[in-house]
Amino acid sequence: MTAPPTNREVLDALTVIVGEHHVLTGEDVGHRWDGYPPVRPMDCRCIVRPATTDEVAAILRYCNYHLIPVVAQGGRTGLSGGASVSVGDVALSLERFRAIGEIDPAGMIVEVEAGVPLEALQQAVQKSEFCFGVDLGARGSATIGGMIATNAGGNAVMRYGMMREQVLGLEAVLADGTILTSNSRVLKNNTGYDLKQLFIGSEGTLGVVTRATLRLRSAPSSSCTAFAGLATFEAVLALLRLASSLCEGALSTFEVMWPGFVHPILQHGNHLPPLANQHKFYVLLEVASRSAQESVEHLLNQAIKQSLIQDAVIAQNTAQAEKLWALRDDIDALIAVHGPAFLYDVSIAQSAMESYLERVERSLRSRWPDVRVAKFGHLADGNIHLCIHTGSSADHAAVDVIVYRALASYGGSISAEHGIGLEKRSFLDVSRNPSEIALMRNIKKSLDPRNILNPGKIFL
Amino acid sequence: MTAPPTNREVLDALTVIVGEHHVLTGEDVGHRWDGYPPVRPMDCRCIVRPATTDEVAAILRYCNYHLIPVVAQGGRTGLSGGASVSVGDVALSLERFRAIGEIDPAGMIVEVEAGVPLEALQQAVQKSEFCFGVDLGARGSATIGGMIATNAGGNAVMRYGMMREQVLGLEAVLADGTILTSNSRVLKNNTGYDLKQLFIGSEGTLGVVTRATLRLRSAPSSSCTAFAGLATFEAVLALLRLASSLCEGALSTFEVMWPGFVHPILQHGNHLPPLANQHKFYVLLEVASRSAQESVEHLLNQAIKQSLIQDAVIAQNTAQAEKLWALRDDIDALIAVHGPAFLYDVSIAQSAMESYLERVERSLRSRWPDVRVAKFGHLADGNIHLCIHTGSSADHAAVDVIVYRALASYGGSISAEHGIGLEKRSFLDVSRNPSEIALMRNIKKSLDPRNILNPGKIFL
Repeated sequence: MTAPPTNREVLDALTVIVGEHHVLTGEDVGHRWDGYPPVRPMDCRCIVRPATTDEVAAILRYCNYHLIPVVAQGGRTGLSGGASVSVGDVALSLERFRAIGEIDPAGMIVEVEAGVPLEALQQAVQKSEFCFGVDLGARGSATIGGMIATNAGGNAVMRYGMMREQVLGLEAVLADGTILTSNSRVLKNNTGYDLKQLFIGSEGTLGVVTRATLRLRSAPSSSCTAFAGLATFEAVLALLRLASSLCEGALSTFEVMWPGFVHPILQHGNHLPPLANQHKFYVLLEVASRSAQESVEHLLNQAIKQSLIQDAVIAQNTAQAEKLWALRDDIDALIAVHGPAFLYDVSIAQSAMESYLERVERSLRSRWPDVRVAKFGHLADGNIHLCIHTGSSADHAAVDVIVYRALASYGGSISAEHGIGLEKRSFLDVSRNPSEIALMRNIKKSLDPRNILNPGKIFL
Repeated sequence: MTAPPTNREVLDALTVIVGEHHVLTGEDVGHRWDGYPPVRPMDCRCIVRPATTDEVAAILRYCNYHLIPVVAQGGRTGLSGGASVSVGDVALSLERFRAIGEIDPAGMIVEVEAGVPLEALQQAVQKSEFCFGVDLGARGSATIGGMIATNAGGNAVMRYGMMREQVLGLEAVLADGTILTSNSRVLKNNTGYDLKQLFIGSEGTLGVVTRATLRLRSAPSSSCTAFAGLATFEAVLALLRLASSLCEGALSTFEVMWPGFVHPILQHGNHLPPLANQHKFYVLLEVASRSAQESVEHLLNQAIKQSLIQDAVIAQNTAQAEKLWALRDDIDALIAVHGPAFLYDVSIAQSAMESYLERVERSLRSRWPDVRVAKFGHLADGNIHLCIHTGSSADHAAVDVIVYRALASYGGSISAEHGIGLEKRSFLDVSRNPSEIALMRNIKKSLDPRNILNPGKIFL
């Protein structure tokens, strides 16, 4: 048995693989954050920036041999600490994996490298007759690789599904440096185990995704966005049912927002209030089809007749629609007004949602009378986000317990779309039973027997 | 080490688990077939029919200990031999797993047992405002468990996806008898590895699926079916593009059929010819939306203007639509006229499809001048089925080689939706590379270390 390599030897070996400009240390590491909100500067052995899959394979082979932990990083704006690093880790950044292939219009597919930010893909696709099925607030930073690693969801899940449903094939590098190309370009390919599924949502613990073939969708010929104010949660649910029924598959977004989310963001002053008065609930909805404008008008007329909505505005053009979306996406404004918040991403049956949220708020308020709770989410998927500000970062663990443990009795999920990472690891048992966790460990051990890939994430 | 149990001891042990009426031997076994077409009577140790998941677990625990192969069986009409048995095998039939839970209208889900035939589920759902997203010709026999095990596709994949996209959660029994309940009822649940994906499409080699929570969809308020005759494959592709663009997500079926498929079925005499004349290509399409009839009329008018179609008929009611479907589904008539055929299920990019099919037919005809080739498929998914009749069952292996090996240069898949089973095992390398096959073996070994679950299927 040879002695473990010194830090200098590790850096030298990595430099041989990727070249001297692409092994970052010291300040170049400390200037980065490894999650969102950006509170914790990165502190790890180094950042290594490979340019090719072969370089990724060489890095993993080396680290696997020497038992050096490797944390793959994309946009580093995940909310669960899936990309967070420890002192001895090698951070493997996919930032040089930026190529977007040509769109294949017959197959309706595009091949992209893992480091491509979602927004760059969206821009590339926009020139074509197609669109990409996943959209989310962090589109400027989130990369395709990170979105695959967390099976990202976002705003259009009700129409197109999560990342899992967009990935036709992928290339990943296993812990021992094996390059696994499972890059199917056909929609239907039932030839043995669907290996790509292992990597989707596994947060970099089973392999490093380097490339993917993504499915595209026909871009809707037009879309129409509306913003409505409602008085009760029952009315919100009834509006969703009405919209689903009237718009038949053309409803692409149905976001619910509570006053504790909307009002502070408006107070921040970046956005004009979409409606004249304040309401108990707000809904941002979008219909995408040839007759989107008519559909939305018809829907809102019916909803007013049925007294489901109190007020509403329909965006008359793309700029107005973008303003409504900007309000929905402005978590930075919320944090600027509220102060730093703990962010949560849970899912729960719609019928249980109100009861769950009331229970959580009651528990929080009994302990922190001045707690600020901002709630918003993708109602159709049962996915709610909470931003909770108690005033002290020391309360994080106690708030976690309240938010997550209350889910158990409702059969909810502690992570709808952001993954487990480090943040939710100790609550995995709320959503997964012992047999499931045992099987996960079994798979982890088979694919990464020396436990070098993002060790300690999801489970210890 | 104890001696292996005698056959009598095995049957006795299984009888203790499931009761004396549910261990079948002798004629009760030989009266069944284990695949489609029904040519090979079953010949195995016994059929065991458990009624509960605990009984399945006890059977697997016993067989795992004694190294007895177990082949899970559903409707036994698969085309790839995934459920075929050998002399020493225990056939584990899920035929007593027939319960269909109540539909949860808010969550849009239903929980079903694995032995429920697709048609029974469709009938149960029909009473509600929902529909189930997968439909296929073998709906009377195919069970939900078998459809999960093969990740079945069928007629509506372009709209709702394959089985994989319908399964929210499932219960499976592992080789060692562990009951794995991964029965999520929420759409978004990213809490560690998505274990259910392992079992979907793995043909009973990693676990026995006993129960699943399935997603339902809003039933379209109306639908409209049409049947068209076209002169060129280019026109067929152009019609698909036109339909996708004009119908925006409401197009639910686009089946292409060649004369070698349609004409023999019409010749059989069970069906009236939908069109007055014969054509080079036939398309069966369905649009499902509030304005389906108008959409189809508009589409066909545009298609006639653009000279894409030569003739067409629109079903005026459900009975007429069903007649068009009955023609498409009547493989029995095809076999009655052609004689027994070898059935294939491949997928390939649309742009390469014509060239691939020509190459295969040329190869076949050069060897068997009187070969009959019937072709039909789900064009939007690139999925084509071939029924090939050479006149002698001895030609099967040689025809396999022609059909499958020609796919390699086009990047096609040897199994779009029926799986690998036994039939395609020796061609797995056409669609999967050595790293993929190695990883499959690794996973198989982790989950079924004693290789008792459907051994020899997919790979040796």
